[in-house]
Amino acid sequence: MKSCGIIVEYNPFHNGHYYHAKMARELSGADIVIAVMSGNFLQRGEPAIIDKWTRAKEALAHGVDLVIELPFAYAVQSADYFAKGGVKLLQALECEALCFGTDSQNEMDYQAFGSFVSKHQEDIDQRYQQIKNNGMSYPQQMTEVFRQLYPQSGLDFSTPNHILGMSYAKENALYAQPMKLYPLKREQAGYHDLTIHQEFASATAIRKAVFANELDQIRQVLPEQVRLDLEASSNVSWEDYWSLLKYKLISNSINELQSIYQMKEGIEYRLQEAAKTSDSFSTFIKQAKTKRYTWTRLQRLSTYILNNVKQAEIEQVWQHSYLQVLGFTEQGQRFLKEKKKTSQLPLLTKISRDSGEQMSLAIRSDQIYRLGNSNISEQNFGRIPIRLS
Amino acid sequence: MKSCGIIVEYNPFHNGHYYHAKMARELSGADIVIAVMSGNFLQRGEPAIIDKWTRAKEALAHGVDLVIELPFAYAVQSADYFAKGGVKLLQALECEALCFGTDSQNEMDYQAFGSFVSKHQEDIDQRYQQIKNNGMSYPQQMTEVFRQLYPQSGLDFSTPNHILGMSYAKENALYAQPMKLYPLKREQAGYHDLTIHQEFASATAIRKAVFANELDQIRQVLPEQVRLDLEASSNVSWEDYWSLLKYKLISNSINELQSIYQMKEGIEYRLQEAAKTSDSFSTFIKQAKTKRYTWTRLQRLSTYILNNVKQAEIEQVWQHSYLQVLGFTEQGQRFLKEKKKTSQLPLLTKISRDSGEQMSLAIRSDQIYRLGNSNISEQNFGRIPIRLS
Repeated sequence: MKSCGIIVEYNPFHNGHYYHAKMARELSGADIVIAVMSGNFLQRGEPAIIDKWTRAKEALAHGVDLVIELPFAYAVQSADYFAKGGVKLLQALECEALCFGTDSQNEMDYQAFGSFVSKHQEDIDQRYQQIKNNGMSYPQQMTEVFRQLYPQSGLDFSTPNHILGMSYAKENALYAQPMKLYPLKREQAGYHDLTIHQEFASATAIRKAVFANELDQIRQVLPEQVRLDLEASSNVSWEDYWSLLKYKLISNSINELQSIYQMKEGIEYRLQEAAKTSDSFSTFIKQAKTKRYTWTRLQRLSTYILNNVKQAEIEQVWQHSYLQVLGFTEQGQRFLKEKKKTSQLPLLTKISRDSGEQMSLAIRSDQIYRLGNSNISEQNFGRIPIRLS
Repeated sequence: MKSCGIIVEYNPFHNGHYYHAKMARELSGADIVIAVMSGNFLQRGEPAIIDKWTRAKEALAHGVDLVIELPFAYAVQSADYFAKGGVKLLQALECEALCFGTDSQNEMDYQAFGSFVSKHQEDIDQRYQQIKNNGMSYPQQMTEVFRQLYPQSGLDFSTPNHILGMSYAKENALYAQPMKLYPLKREQAGYHDLTIHQEFASATAIRKAVFANELDQIRQVLPEQVRLDLEASSNVSWEDYWSLLKYKLISNSINELQSIYQMKEGIEYRLQEAAKTSDSFSTFIKQAKTKRYTWTRLQRLSTYILNNVKQAEIEQVWQHSYLQVLGFTEQGQRFLKEKKKTSQLPLLTKISRDSGEQMSLAIRSDQIYRLGNSNISEQNFGRIPIRLS
């Protein structure tokens, strides 16, 4: 069976995602579509608005055949590590194609770009070292590096989905059998776009409507099932975890805060002070923000703090990765059976209390996720993959 | 000016406390009554139902001239350390007398008991070592030790206020100029008594009525001002901190939990497991309870966990104790001025951010206390002693 991978978050699942899954199958001619999906905490350092099992169920009903969880250690990361995880899991399943959204304004050959980078990584790093203290943002710096080294690419690092696309391309090119890349241009509703269009809206706009209790407004941009799930009042946002984050920042010593993954350069002092005087997560981030520490970077760091993440745990997962199956269609299940013998990573269809050290971060972060809303059900023990027939 | 000390918690202040303050003055013939009062966390490991400033104000209006805070490091402790702190602070102010409630059924000479213990501590320790593994509870063991060594005392370790009285007596006898002791027999309303009597009720019964929203029922056992304070809805109980405690127990590693003061013998595993499956503080304690770990011991341990207390911080306060003044009457202020020159411990009338390392536990625990109810005002910075004129 030929498969096409997509790397997703579904926060929440909407018509644009449905279109993406359909086009992945169509463009690649694959028999099955595999979604590698972030779990309960997401790339930009946020709790997912709906838990991972519900999102997996929605995806299976809308064009996806197999949902594999992208572990926290890869999911809550900058684009490069996020892509590294997504591509690694798809490669383990011998996936032949990868389809991803792009919001780049230029037509660009991602495949060629990927090979270029994989061959010239040293030059790129060197150029980057030369300019990294020039006061520009990281995206601006990378644009400059590529303008110098690879002018024909017409690169533009300023739109988030395009950056992810480039990260997938770079990572993919490192494998002996790279997947064929299918960039899918977003027609409407850019990543940060807040307007609700005819049939499409960005996930950001949808979340905004949900938290403003305006679910009727988004009726036309979501599958019916997703709207019902969003109405079931197990939604969460960062504000639901704010009291816990504040408590942790206030109660921990500076030494203890320094043991958190990515806590460095003295930001722990700034965060502790900001926590003491803030009454909500958004005022906290506004107060802590600097030029160096952007909103997304602080959100991600906050997610590490909330989940008490340590460097060693992250590395543990990187070294002992696994494929946790959240659900499948009949087709997906057949595909899994086929790949079971050849998969380069262990396939997990249930989590027990002795699932090994590399699972401890995943289990713990799911338990902490549940503290945000008492309606969220157990996320690991006793759960088996959703089977959509 | 002659002074009489009382060591108190006021959780909340009631008519029995008012009577205690009046009798302290009357029995001792003192000019002023000094209350050494627990702050926002109490001896039995609970958050105080009302914050310390409000309780100090109530006391000053009802027979007390000076309120000094008993620091967390002494307050949230078993009877012996609680007494050590209370007596130490009163001794630093050259207090001449100490009046305390007792619920012992026997008439007993506390002063003589104190001297006996201070002279025979080694014998007592030895006897205790001999029987300590006999399976009896600590109170039963101490009753047995004294039955063997000092039968004429007629000791009874089974009632909490009596145990405190004996601890005061022991500690007091270690000083060159011991205070004269005035035990005050409780006429009604024993410590654990849940009935509401004519004018007196135990603090336990009063808290029960408050949390059942039956403030009218306790109108006659409290000063009017206290009832109004209790109605102002800044009350807290352990349940208001349960989500934070649960989060801490779930998010911390076993190693991290082991760094908490008094966490030993593997109880951290038991507590972490109990936290995962409990939805309230009371079910948590019920689940974690064993013969060895009584309700009070677990509550106290929970208070250390909630406040992330470390052994070194406790010792820091023991070695560098201080007198934090919460309030005074005119008389009390005059007394303080007089003692300022001779006091053996530093007198603090305001807390600033650089008040020294020995203040960090106090400041932190007050910040955490505030997380239980958003109506609780700042407890340290910018606060000055209440002055009742």
